Amino acid sequence: MGKPQPRLTDSQLVDWLRLIRSENVGPRTFRALMSSCGSARAAIEALPELARRGGARAPVRVASVEEIERELMVARRLGVRFIAIGEADYPPILRQIASAPPVLACRGRPEALQQPTVAIVGSRNASAAGLTFAERLARGLGRAGYVVASGLARGIDQRAHAASLETGAVGVLAGGHAKPYPSEAAPLIERMVEYGAVVSEMPVEWEPRGRDFPRRNRIVSGLALGTIVVEAARGSGSLITAKFALEQNRQVFAAPGSPLDPRAEGTNDLLKQGATICTHVDDVLAALAPMRSDDLFAALEEGVEGEPCWGDEADIEAASAPGDDLASDAFADGGSEGVRDRIAALLGPSPITLDELARAAEAPAREVRVALMELELAGRIEFSGGDRVALRPADGDA
Amino acid sequence: MGKPQPRLTDSQLVDWLRLIRSENVGPRTFRALMSSCGSARAAIEALPELARRGGARAPVRVASVEEIERELMVARRLGVRFIAIGEADYPPILRQIASAPPVLACRGRPEALQQPTVAIVGSRNASAAGLTFAERLARGLGRAGYVVASGLARGIDQRAHAASLETGAVGVLAGGHAKPYPSEAAPLIERMVEYGAVVSEMPVEWEPRGRDFPRRNRIVSGLALGTIVVEAARGSGSLITAKFALEQNRQVFAAPGSPLDPRAEGTNDLLKQGATICTHVDDVLAALAPMRSDDLFAALEEGVEGEPCWGDEADIEAASAPGDDLASDAFADGGSEGVRDRIAALLGPSPITLDELARAAEAPAREVRVALMELELAGRIEFSGGDRVALRPADGDA
Repeated sequence: MGKPQPRLTDSQLVDWLRLIRSENVGPRTFRALMSSCGSARAAIEALPELARRGGARAPVRVASVEEIERELMVARRLGVRFIAIGEADYPPILRQIASAPPVLACRGRPEALQQPTVAIVGSRNASAAGLTFAERLARGLGRAGYVVASGLARGIDQRAHAASLETGAVGVLAGGHAKPYPSEAAPLIERMVEYGAVVSEMPVEWEPRGRDFPRRNRIVSGLALGTIVVEAARGSGSLITAKFALEQNRQVFAAPGSPLDPRAEGTNDLLKQGATICTHVDDVLAALAPMRSDDLFAALEEGVEGEPCWGDEADIEAASAPGDDLASDAFADGGSEGVRDRIAALLGPSPITLDELARAAEAPAREVRVALMELELAGRIEFSGGDRVALRPADGDA
Repeated sequence: MGKPQPRLTDSQLVDWLRLIRSENVGPRTFRALMSSCGSARAAIEALPELARRGGARAPVRVASVEEIERELMVARRLGVRFIAIGEADYPPILRQIASAPPVLACRGRPEALQQPTVAIVGSRNASAAGLTFAERLARGLGRAGYVVASGLARGIDQRAHAASLETGAVGVLAGGHAKPYPSEAAPLIERMVEYGAVVSEMPVEWEPRGRDFPRRNRIVSGLALGTIVVEAARGSGSLITAKFALEQNRQVFAAPGSPLDPRAEGTNDLLKQGATICTHVDDVLAALAPMRSDDLFAALEEGVEGEPCWGDEADIEAASAPGDDLASDAFADGGSEGVRDRIAALLGPSPITLDELARAAEAPAREVRVALMELELAGRIEFSGGDRVALRPADGDA
């Protein structure tokens, strides 16, 4: 459908990767920086000064050209393609989430990322019944034309991937493509890239750490119209995926289980919180049917085409979402020191929403945003979920 | 609380039992007859003529004084007490259902019928997990001051009874007290009557038949503020109890189960239909707390006291619910033959609601009611659920 979309030039891609691979730059700050500075290269140049304003004690580490060129070389060897957020191959509904990765590293067929997708997630130590049910769901969804996304973990995830290989399986890595995790998933990944795709937002050689898994989960849910949680103990990672799905305004489905089965505690809790009960693939198909009408998908694609493209750096300023525009003058002046200190004082270790923060700060939204960008660059705060922010622990390992 | 309520005299009790034990007289027709005729004795005298008007081919069988005196004698031997619907010992919330039994035969402590009650029902061939969960629920409800009601069946029912013996267990028989069913429940029943109660609406020596079980289930749900279905295959009797509970405006709770477990299909279906998910007794306590306030219970008891009492036959006409009064003149004239035939023609083997019938009949509500009473007495129709009526199969075994 429609006109070919711009792609980043090779040199723009290097800039984008340098920016997103730089210290303290997350997807949200990446977007704010692009909006303020007009291009990734300009943002990279501005980084040290912005971080200093935010209160960074040491100079912020900026990814070097050499580092990115090495990543591109390793990526080429692995058959990884980079897809930037404004490009036509970027998954259209992932683009809608607040913390969409600016660049996805993709192995396999990017077409799989364009199709209506459902996520199936669940326990690593799943029961036999849970595994069988995940398999049934994945087959049923595949037959109905859905791609199935998951997180490549042992148990439910891998079973869902294996059952959707021929109809379209998309896996999301917590680390880089050169460090598939868990390692036993390597053969499965090779089969997935034949018909489907495996994606990662991390540097190609990144070894995943604990905190990368919840972060990865927002991409699993963000790729999908709905997320099905098959089995989940209380506090398990699958529930984080479900929480992301809710924050992203996506459907959450949960399979019920015996009140005496600890692996069903999380899913039963989800049902109490209003998730849609799923005992058969038809429950999912019925709930998602209205979202899958051709009209809606056409509209989505229109939207992507119609919006100024992130990949066309000249258009970056216009492309930023209405709430995200940092007027250049505010940026040129730097954030107000008073506002920044007030915000740092308001934040604690428990995440609060940006709305709550803006209300408590009693400052113009624009100044709050500039202050947050500077504080994040200084490594003093971190975003979590779609819309929450907290002080970063002083002795953080990150 | 409050003044002692009237009780039926011995001779009134004989009349009431004769009327409700007569052929084709169900709880609804019993009430209509009392409202029309003013007393059970007058109703018994009117029965043959009313049934003839309804189209009965053979004379309707009226229970004899001897038959009832024999029942009273057997009852006395078993320690059975009869409690009529207007008497103080009648369970107050059972009284609210459309088809409340006019007389309950009770063994044990009638006080147990006055306390806030929850029903626990489920499969006869329950899983070990289902049985354990039923037991936990029953104990938790007992600790929280609830009486637990169920149907004495194998599996979930008996486990719920056994776990609530000391805190209050109420069982409802499908047959009479002299024919406990299933027979292996006899020792359990003997223990239940020590602290709780076992009740039946059937003649004391009645051997239960298949159709008596669903009928019994309306009493189980009718005694309770809420019904919990622990495990139930599709089409099982527990789902009938749940349907009655809904019709009676009572809460329905369902325990979730694995999508692959056939014993959970019925409960998972209930969840899809909006039942409250129950994985812990707290789910039930939280949902029922508002209904259990002292105020509400006081109000219930007020209501019972305030309303003219069914036991005081002089007040019977005034006591009938507003929709149920059959003006004496309509009764004296007999129902309109045209309306009766029209109604008989409108009915089929599938139950329809009384509302639907009244609309389709295009006749005054009063005439519809008289016609239904006469048709029921003639054995041509039968009521099911709270509010539905159907033609009786010509070759019915009942």
